[in-house]
Amino acid sequence: MKKSIARATLGIVALSLATIASAQVKPEDQIKFRKAGYSFMSWNMGKIKSNLEGTYDAAQVTAAANAIAGIANSGMGALFGAGTDKDVGSQKTRVKPELFQNMPEVGKLAGDFSGAANNLAKVAATGDAAAVKTAFGDLGKTCKACHDKFREE
Amino acid sequence: MKKSIARATLGIVALSLATIASAQVKPEDQIKFRKAGYSFMSWNMGKIKSNLEGTYDAAQVTAAANAIAGIANSGMGALFGAGTDKDVGSQKTRVKPELFQNMPEVGKLAGDFSGAANNLAKVAATGDAAAVKTAFGDLGKTCKACHDKFREE
Repeated sequence: MKKSIARATLGIVALSLATIASAQVKPEDQIKFRKAGYSFMSWNMGKIKSNLEGTYDAAQVTAAANAIAGIANSGMGALFGAGTDKDVGSQKTRVKPELFQNMPEVGKLAGDFSGAANNLAKVAATGDAAAVKTAFGDLGKTCKACHDKFREE
Repeated sequence: MKKSIARATLGIVALSLATIASAQVKPEDQIKFRKAGYSFMSWNMGKIKSNLEGTYDAAQVTAAANAIAGIANSGMGALFGAGTDKDVGSQKTRVKPELFQNMPEVGKLAGDFSGAANNLAKVAATGDAAAVKTAFGDLGKTCKACHDKFREE
């Protein structure tokens, strides 16, 4: 519980700090960049899944987990600035407008997500496939928690 | 020189290993994912540039550098598989077909790029803005070296 609150606080702080950095990026580009981040993470999630279901290559899993953690910790909250709650120019978004009205909850979800991504990277470095499977499942749950609430199908 | 050869070899090995992993990803998605990776790195490069030109926030620079390194080390060579040398479906690519005929050179460029990204992450962690400026410039040179040769304007 204490850990969960600490993560939520971290998440909110990350989002707040990130807002400062979003000032220079146009809403259209914010949507482009955040979609790029999620897309690149999904490729790496797919690689880890393939490794868990097939031949396990610890180096590939570690690299994929580090990429996900690096992206998760990069302050993506800055890419949810004003004016990014709907399609802008050529950039379509599936974000629900509700996300922008529930920042404390989003901060908690973001904190859970970063925490799970960091844990996966840590576990991947040990090369223990069974532990990676658990950490990977935990990370997937944090993705889903946000998608279920704040992303259109 | 020795370091440069070692990096080239690492780059080629990374590309070769990566090819195994590309088997399951459709050419159209390979292009989508690699563009996502470069796009997300460019956002983080932009943040570091802003920090160097304005108020320096060591935590933000470190996070951005770690994201870039995580992506650079993720085995993006897997996203340059057969059939990705031209536009596929809805995915446009600016890659020159020459890239696919010069894999040893691409391996060297990729190794230089990863090495410079790792160095930037290492230097960013020290919080020394002047050293980051140099490491950032060095990384930019490795980006440009590949763009100049293998990317359409």
